[in-house]
Amino acid sequence: MDVLKEITKRAKTIDGQVMSYLEEGDNMKLNLAVRHYPSAGGKRLRPMMAQVVAQAVGGKGDKAIPFGSALEIIHNFTLVHDDVMDNDSMRRGRPAVHVLFDVPTAIIAGDALFARAFEIITSSDVPPEHINRLIKTTARTVWLIAEGQQEDMDLENIPVDQVAVDDYLKMIYKKTAVLFECAAEGGALIGGGSEEQIRSMKEYARLMGMGFQVWDDILALTGDEKQLGKPVGNDIRNGKRTLIVLHALHTMPRNDPRRAKLMKALGNDKATPEEIKQAIEVLEDCGAVDHARKTAAEYAVKAKEQLECLPPSLEREFLSGVIDFAVGRKV
Amino acid sequence: MDVLKEITKRAKTIDGQVMSYLEEGDNMKLNLAVRHYPSAGGKRLRPMMAQVVAQAVGGKGDKAIPFGSALEIIHNFTLVHDDVMDNDSMRRGRPAVHVLFDVPTAIIAGDALFARAFEIITSSDVPPEHINRLIKTTARTVWLIAEGQQEDMDLENIPVDQVAVDDYLKMIYKKTAVLFECAAEGGALIGGGSEEQIRSMKEYARLMGMGFQVWDDILALTGDEKQLGKPVGNDIRNGKRTLIVLHALHTMPRNDPRRAKLMKALGNDKATPEEIKQAIEVLEDCGAVDHARKTAAEYAVKAKEQLECLPPSLEREFLSGVIDFAVGRKV
Repeated sequence: MDVLKEITKRAKTIDGQVMSYLEEGDNMKLNLAVRHYPSAGGKRLRPMMAQVVAQAVGGKGDKAIPFGSALEIIHNFTLVHDDVMDNDSMRRGRPAVHVLFDVPTAIIAGDALFARAFEIITSSDVPPEHINRLIKTTARTVWLIAEGQQEDMDLENIPVDQVAVDDYLKMIYKKTAVLFECAAEGGALIGGGSEEQIRSMKEYARLMGMGFQVWDDILALTGDEKQLGKPVGNDIRNGKRTLIVLHALHTMPRNDPRRAKLMKALGNDKATPEEIKQAIEVLEDCGAVDHARKTAAEYAVKAKEQLECLPPSLEREFLSGVIDFAVGRKV
Repeated sequence: MDVLKEITKRAKTIDGQVMSYLEEGDNMKLNLAVRHYPSAGGKRLRPMMAQVVAQAVGGKGDKAIPFGSALEIIHNFTLVHDDVMDNDSMRRGRPAVHVLFDVPTAIIAGDALFARAFEIITSSDVPPEHINRLIKTTARTVWLIAEGQQEDMDLENIPVDQVAVDDYLKMIYKKTAVLFECAAEGGALIGGGSEEQIRSMKEYARLMGMGFQVWDDILALTGDEKQLGKPVGNDIRNGKRTLIVLHALHTMPRNDPRRAKLMKALGNDKATPEEIKQAIEVLEDCGAVDHARKTAAEYAVKAKEQLECLPPSLEREFLSGVIDFAVGRKV
């Protein structure tokens, strides 16, 4: 199965559905702001996860589209607010919402997207008690995402060599994995899966999300600049606390001269391209990048084990392929 | 019935309930930020409305407390974000969340409050299909509040004498009345009211909310500075588009010398206290304040008419008293 081709195909159908939910609205400016990120496309992995999981447990994928679209809209709401908070001016090759409009409009647009998402979930074609469960899970998920964003900012105020790997893992679980979890759990519920299948699909998605994020950090250091659409090594310059950096600092002896090289570039917005390059070489050389690759691969193996609760099907195969994509992709 | 005393009594019980919903959370800073406004008290009019309406249609008031608390939490979420957008540094005599912490934490705290609110609604002790309806109505309400905040900002960019009264009324409907509407509609549903009662209670709350806001604008010009806790006439200095100002500018002839006096102070942050005082005198003198008083009184009369769908009860009397409070209060 060509997973990337299947992802692209499914994303196209989902695109139209997501945008159809963002048509209604009285205020021109708010409508434009609300549609700005969702209309820029994306892989639509979260609605796709809900759809495919619903099919894989024996249900109809279409029934999961409203719920999945709501999660995509929530994902976009968090991007709008995150970009304000992090003062990022570009997203998906476009100006950020707060740059194109202004900060107040971006805050409101995020809130409006969030509200619309919950309205969409109530329109799901499933029994009312299942809708309640979807709402409850989604609301708890958004709370955790908010905590994750707060923890991410908290970690930035701790000297990087004092950040514990566990705190980093907890943070990326909340910032990234939890929304995938929610998508898979909801998809399994909508598809009529057993409680055991619901639990396994949730765990599958958590592991996939963790691997996805660790792989993201690897790509940001070792990927192809053109394919990524951003300068390789930006994370070093911004002093981002990634598994790779934490592992390097936790394992390299205090007097290791490579340590000084890494620290010189880390979080130094005046670092030269050569210094950034050297810092990346240190991370490769000390085994930190390999350690992250190994970690991502372990998440992938464990995620695939969770698929054993499913009967054999093309969808199960696709879910397995999604893992290989998440922890092996070049973009 | 001493309405203010009854409001204070009910608010005390509701306080504890609202705060109990904000205890859970992993991140210390976020927990503090989330609890900052709700813990400062307030009149709790929205949960009270849900509670009393549920009783007035013959149901148990306690059943409406989770839903009402969720609306109070949503009200607080909008205050946190509004204060960031309007750059207001004080609220209820305390520093604003974004001042006490920082802007990113305030944005996250608002999002987290919003998420918690929807989780709370799912815990309501009513049939699942009613919970769905509550969620849907609440989600639509928050979308409208977002539109209202956007429209408020849009109006600020239009010369004040070109702002239509209808646009102002539409804006305050969305910013203020819609959340009261939601409280009363939900309360009537939870209390087991008929569809006719649900409609009437919704309309009652809309009219009450409109009157409440118009009265608020009157108070801000003519109230007692000490009781209000803010300088009288701030709205003039900030150039706020209120019914009073719009009516004055729409009815005074172009060459009326009072017009120049008003325009000199309106939106002029360097206006002297004497100039502000003169502008307020113009608004009194030209009949604009009286017109607003009359408008608020009309909303009150119409709101009370909606109570006819209810059987006689202490709660019906209280709902009538709430109207007199909303459009007659001194604070």
